[in-house]
Order: sequence, then C-alpha cells, then structure tokens
Amino acid sequence: MPLGEFELIDRFFREAGCRRGDVVLGVGDDGAILRPPEGFDLIAVSDTLVEGVHFPAGAPARSVGHRALAVNLSDIAAMGAVPAWSLLALTLPRADEAWIKEFAKGFSLLALEHEVSLVGGDTTRGPLMIGVQVIGFVPHGVALRRAGGRPGDVLCISGTPGDAAAGLALLAPDAAAGAISRRARGDETSRVALRARFEYPTPRLELGRQLLDIATACIDVSDGLAGDIGKLAAASGCAAIIDLERVPRSSALAALVRDGVFEEREALRFMLAGGDDYELVFTVPPENREALAELEARGDVWVIGTLVEAEPGTPHVTVRTEQPELQRYLDALPSSFDHFGG
Amino acid sequence: MPLGEFELIDRFFREAGCRRGDVVLGVGDDGAILRPPEGFDLIAVSDTLVEGVHFPAGAPARSVGHRALAVNLSDIAAMGAVPAWSLLALTLPRADEAWIKEFAKGFSLLALEHEVSLVGGDTTRGPLMIGVQVIGFVPHGVALRRAGGRPGDVLCISGTPGDAAAGLALLAPDAAAGAISRRARGDETSRVALRARFEYPTPRLELGRQLLDIATACIDVSDGLAGDIGKLAAASGCAAIIDLERVPRSSALAALVRDGVFEEREALRFMLAGGDDYELVFTVPPENREALAELEARGDVWVIGTLVEAEPGTPHVTVRTEQPELQRYLDALPSSFDHFGG
Repeated sequence: MPLGEFELIDRFFREAGCRRGDVVLGVGDDGAILRPPEGFDLIAVSDTLVEGVHFPAGAPARSVGHRALAVNLSDIAAMGAVPAWSLLALTLPRADEAWIKEFAKGFSLLALEHEVSLVGGDTTRGPLMIGVQVIGFVPHGVALRRAGGRPGDVLCISGTPGDAAAGLALLAPDAAAGAISRRARGDETSRVALRARFEYPTPRLELGRQLLDIATACIDVSDGLAGDIGKLAAASGCAAIIDLERVPRSSALAALVRDGVFEEREALRFMLAGGDDYELVFTVPPENREALAELEARGDVWVIGTLVEAEPGTPHVTVRTEQPELQRYLDALPSSFDHFGG
Repeated sequence: MPLGEFELIDRFFREAGCRRGDVVLGVGDDGAILRPPEGFDLIAVSDTLVEGVHFPAGAPARSVGHRALAVNLSDIAAMGAVPAWSLLALTLPRADEAWIKEFAKGFSLLALEHEVSLVGGDTTRGPLMIGVQVIGFVPHGVALRRAGGRPGDVLCISGTPGDAAAGLALLAPDAAAGAISRRARGDETSRVALRARFEYPTPRLELGRQLLDIATACIDVSDGLAGDIGKLAAASGCAAIIDLERVPRSSALAALVRDGVFEEREALRFMLAGGDDYELVFTVPPENREALAELEARGDVWVIGTLVEAEPGTPHVTVRTEQPELQRYLDALPSSFDHFGG
C-alpha cells in the first residue's frame, strides 16, 4: 500500500484532529491501543461511501469527509451511544493534496465537535471510496435497538425528512432540460438550506443519548422514512402507521414547492422515501409521554404516527392521510413502503 | 446500499460463523453491541485488499476471504493481542452467489479457528475491494509496539520470509515467455507450498501472545523483511543489522532455486524485499535469551540479526553477508532497504 497519502492525511488530521486521553497509541503502529471505560458496552458501526453511488461524482471534498463520518455517527446516535474512536479506509484515484486537505477538514471538524479520535486506517489507490468505522460507548445493557417498540408506542422523528433528497435533486438535476430549468428556480436561501442538508447532515448524538431514558426502539433515517420505519416495526414485531399530515415539512422544501421547483407529489416522495436525512426515528411508550412532551416543546421532535399490533399479511408500514384522493395514490403504491429506499 | 448481498453473506457467515458470548448484538441493527473484558486494552486494526493491487485479478474467492481476515489478524498478533470481533466492508462488482459463498468460507474458517465474530459491515456495488477491521484485547499496558527495541537486542523472525512473494510470482508469471516456461518447471510439491504461503498466510497469534513476556518490540512482515525491520528500527531509535546467512530459507524456495525456477538473486530479493509473508519480526533483550532459546528449540523462530546504536546518516537497516561479492551487490543497492516494499 502506498503510505504516502495516509501520511499526508495523518498530517492534516494531526493538525486539526482530536486527541483523547483513552487513546494509548494512535495511528502509526500495526494497531491502535485503546482503553475503554469500565461499566460500558462498546458500539461498533461501519459504513462505506462510494463516489457515484452515495454522493455525486465531483462532490466537494469537505462534504465527502463530513458525510463519511456523519453517517457513522448517526448510527452511533441511533444506539444512544457516545462516539470515541474512528478508523478510516480511504481509496483514492490519485494523491491530490488539495482534495485530501479539504476531505480531512470536513472529517476533522465534525470529529472535533464530537470528540472523536482517528486511531487508524489505510490508504489505497483505486476508485474514490471511503470506509469508516466508529466505536462508541453506552452504559451496560441500555443501548437502543430497532427491536423493543410495542403496540401503543408513538412514532417520533427528530427533524424534517426529505430535505436531503430534495437537496440531492438540486445538486444532480434530472437529465431533461425542462427539469433542469425548473430546478434552477426558487429562492436561493431555501436551495442552499436543502443542499446543506445533503452535504452536511447533522448526526443527532445529543438527542440519541436523551432517548436512552425515553425510547423503546430507535433507527436512523438513511434509506428513507417509510422503509426505515418498516425495519423498526419488523424488528419490534409490530406494524407502523404514519400520519402523513403530522410528518413535518421544512420551510425550505415548502418554499420550493410553492415556487414550482418541486411538485407536491415529488416532495411527498422525498419525505417518505428519500434517504440521507440521518434523523432519528424512535418509539415512545405511554408512560414516557411527559418526557416526550418536553422534547416536543423544545421543537426537537415530532410525533408522526403509532405502532400497532402486526396483522398477518399486512404491510409493516401504512401511510395514512385525511385526503381521500391522496390516500388512493398511497394505497396504489406497490403493497407497502417497505420497498422504498431499498 | 443494496442489502441483498450482505444478507447473503450474513447467511453464509451465520452457517459457519463464530458466536462469542461477549457479542450482545451482532449484525442487523444500526450498530453492534459488544462487551469488552475489564482490565484489558483494546487493539483496533484495519486493512483493505483491492483486486489487482493486493491480490491477482481472478484469485480464488476462498483465498481472498482468508487473506482479508489474515492480514488483520497478523496486525493483532504483532501487538501481542487476542482477536475478538471483526467488521467487513465488501465492495463487489456483482452478486455472484458462488463467489460470495467461497469468500465467506475462507473468511469464516479462519475466524472460527481464532474465535473471531463478524459483528457488522456493509456491502456496496463497485470494483472488488475488501475492507476488514478487527478488534482484540491485551492486558492493560503491555501491548507490543514497533518502538521498544534497544541496542543489543537480537532480531528474530517467526518463519521463512520470501515464500509468499515466490508464490505470487508462480501465480502471476512475468510477461516474458521465457520466464513463464521457467516458472512452470520445478517440483510440484514446492510450487504448491509456496502458492499456499501467498494464498493462505498464517497469522502468528499464539506466538504473538507468547512474545508479550519476551520481546521489546514487534512488527509483522507485510511489505518486505528489510523494509519492515527498518520501520521497527526507526520507531525504536536504533539501527538494525540483518545477517543474511541467518535468514531462514524454506526448503520449497530452496528446491525451486535448485530446479532453476528462480535465480539465486531473485530468491534473495523475495526474502529481503518480498511482502505478504505475515511472519512476525521481534526483538529480544539479553535477559530473555533463555526464553528465546526455548522458542528456537521448538523450531518456531530464528535469530537473524541485532539492533545497534543508530549512527547519524547511516541507514536504519544493513544486510551483512560473509560473501564479499554479494556484500558489494547489497551495498550497491540504493542507500538502504528502507525503500524496499514501499
């Protein structure tokens, strides 16, 4: 393996990186030596981003660095854990110092914010691909899982879904010239806000830790709201009902629908099936409604549905609306939203 | 990410995989929940294999699965640790069930042998690339490092270097037709043995743990003997002298030199600069010579040189021979063996 680039990255990371006291030995030996706290479980997560699959070719290096860490921190958040250490396996087509510097900046700024140390990894020449692993801590036996939700729990979300998919659509407009010109309309503040939701997602780490005391189950929205809720419901042995009118829409997405940049049904598709939001979806039992009300009052979370008993032969997710015509549209979608985001 | 292949892999791994009691929750949620033992440090290692770079295109899937885990276990061994958990980030050009099954078999058999659980990972479509991370344990504060060797320590190796490079040369003969026909000669048992040393390297985990009580520094030979010894010497602030006549040559490599498959200087280059052996190189101080003698008597290790004071302006590694003509050849090599295997 050519070590040159990793040394380059290591230099940028050392300049901006986070030094934790529990890292006995970091990058530079055969392995890192790490000292976990006693009384805690470890949470290990792993996610790979590939150019052209998980982000558009030519995406800004700083965004790529940010997202590569953020998608992993989001998984840590969904378990209610605190992140600590990261590993980076970077495959690069060439040693482009400016690109690597920006990549390291995007990664490091987020790592610093959440006190995550880069403790190892390697660099290989090949198509642009970023593999990241993060290890975090959670007190023994209390980590949040997808399983654990019960009928009667309410379904909640930590932010406005669909924004990242809308932002990605603005970055990579459809090939049709008409769509391109339509995409170019709309107020610039909203356009910038949606693009930022794709390029710089916010892992909900603080909320994840608060949910340890409140939630019965949790998942992060990476593949699409309805599909990911389907996974939580299936793991919990329940069915989920999403009340479409309760799913929050960001003012930015609403503005671009008003301006005609997106059609209404396009916006609904972003919200229900668009991925990359990295918001948390979680379930709260009746006895914790008061604690939930506090989070709602702070504007951090929205109740968007409920878990019910699973009926044999019915889908894990149903989206319900008060508008009969729209309900017919939703019902006509292939059997269930489980297929979305797959 | 298409989940299909990972579910496929997960199925093969579940059939043959290792279940550890300290894995509270494995593959299938946002993250794995792991319970580390108290009183231990964690060792985290990460290594990526790329088709055409780290193994020949079209290599047997079982070998690829074995090597992807073995190179990481070798890093764990070099720290004197016991492996426990692994993560797998697999990029595949297509979902080829037969290939995946063989890959999983190669990975799983080695994982079972060393009681390593696969606890997470992901699958992405793209050029064949395998990223593996392994986490292991070592008692607080005793992990072996590259730094720690002192002048007067003897340099040792756990096996015969150069075999893997010779095996790779047999697998991927030079383009020249003469070389191809030469490569096809030689006794088949030796050819098979050398190819196996490349395709199925043995991580020296048991020896690594024994070295905790004996060695001052350790590294695994992945990039080439002289270059890797140079890294150990540099990290230890010393210089290393390798006595060429003490470096063990396998009977298989010796046989193929006798048969004219490899020239003598080619064999020397494999031994000194060929990578992929995954043997351990370590340093032993005078006070532990007796314990070392026991390992030597078992035929597990060979003394091949010594650490000396580093002199300003001299290379970190010198290869010494009793044959004056060969010494001139070695001295004429560019400044030091540090460059080998880069």
